[in-house]
Amino acid sequence: MPVLDEVVAANTEYVRTFGAKSELALPPARHFAILTCMDARLDPAGYAGLSEGDAHVIRNAGGRASDDAIRSLVISYKLLGTAEWFVVHHSDCGMEYFTDEVMGDLLEKSLETAAIGADGFYDVGTGPGSSAGKNVEWLTISDREQSVVDDVRRIRNHPLVPARIPIYGYVYNVHTGGLEEVAEATRVGRAG
Amino acid sequence: MPVLDEVVAANTEYVRTFGAKSELALPPARHFAILTCMDARLDPAGYAGLSEGDAHVIRNAGGRASDDAIRSLVISYKLLGTAEWFVVHHSDCGMEYFTDEVMGDLLEKSLETAAIGADGFYDVGTGPGSSAGKNVEWLTISDREQSVVDDVRRIRNHPLVPARIPIYGYVYNVHTGGLEEVAEATRVGRAG
Repeated sequence: MPVLDEVVAANTEYVRTFGAKSELALPPARHFAILTCMDARLDPAGYAGLSEGDAHVIRNAGGRASDDAIRSLVISYKLLGTAEWFVVHHSDCGMEYFTDEVMGDLLEKSLETAAIGADGFYDVGTGPGSSAGKNVEWLTISDREQSVVDDVRRIRNHPLVPARIPIYGYVYNVHTGGLEEVAEATRVGRAG
Repeated sequence: MPVLDEVVAANTEYVRTFGAKSELALPPARHFAILTCMDARLDPAGYAGLSEGDAHVIRNAGGRASDDAIRSLVISYKLLGTAEWFVVHHSDCGMEYFTDEVMGDLLEKSLETAAIGADGFYDVGTGPGSSAGKNVEWLTISDREQSVVDDVRRIRNHPLVPARIPIYGYVYNVHTGGLEEVAEATRVGRAG
């Protein structure tokens, strides 16, 4: 079955059993937000025990504290009352396997999907490509614990983020499902 | 129980029942990605029928096609092989209830959480505030179907997005759990 039909069929079943979720309020009931990676293996509702209505979930490639993620976090506390935030990166993240230079080169060669081998990604396409990827900060990760510390610090130091909000730093282990604290990151959050 | 303890307890249970998910591969098994809102009421795994490992999920305030969302989508297809994308905004989105000017003013007055009344958000804090919010594009929404069309078009016209990728536009109904297609948006995607 095509993906679109599968999604529509799954949604029909979701609607059938939606029940009391129809009455949920807009502000997150448990007053917190999670910034995490788009990785398909991560289910924040599962790994953090969320039900619909509980918490804001912001996701991008890497779970990075991009300007857009900070835009979302500021809206989250200023308008919708979240009071605690989690930054959750993870093991075996795709963002660890390339650099800005590699990505720019791959996109310049073609807009086809690259393959991955022992040495990282390599291009299998024959074009057309685009040099526009050379001007993008891809926010790759070279050290997964340090990237959590860096992102908590970037959020903490943003002029629109109040010092009172605790920011907890974690790495999700894709082989166990476990959240492992990055104590140095959480301390950045707590020190204000 | 504090939120942090609740999350840790929920995660302990998730780990206990993690099972075969420990063997999931990095690339999304079902080769698609969803860009949707951070709203707490939205559970993309629920409304689209995702299991861990299936699909990339990108979320921000509004589910908007920001530069950062497009960064994530480009990584998603170029390095990890997604071949179809969904843009899913929703009814009763917080992004419909303010403007850039309102948000800039609220943040200038204080970094406390604002309240919401019949006329929209109003500030209850007594400072300190920051004028930094005046320089941010908050990506508010004035027409929810048009915002889906606009975002599909922005992605479609990006130089790093191949024309072959279908982009489906939807609005999620927070009162029914249903996905409602924005046909004009999907057509932008299909026309290339």
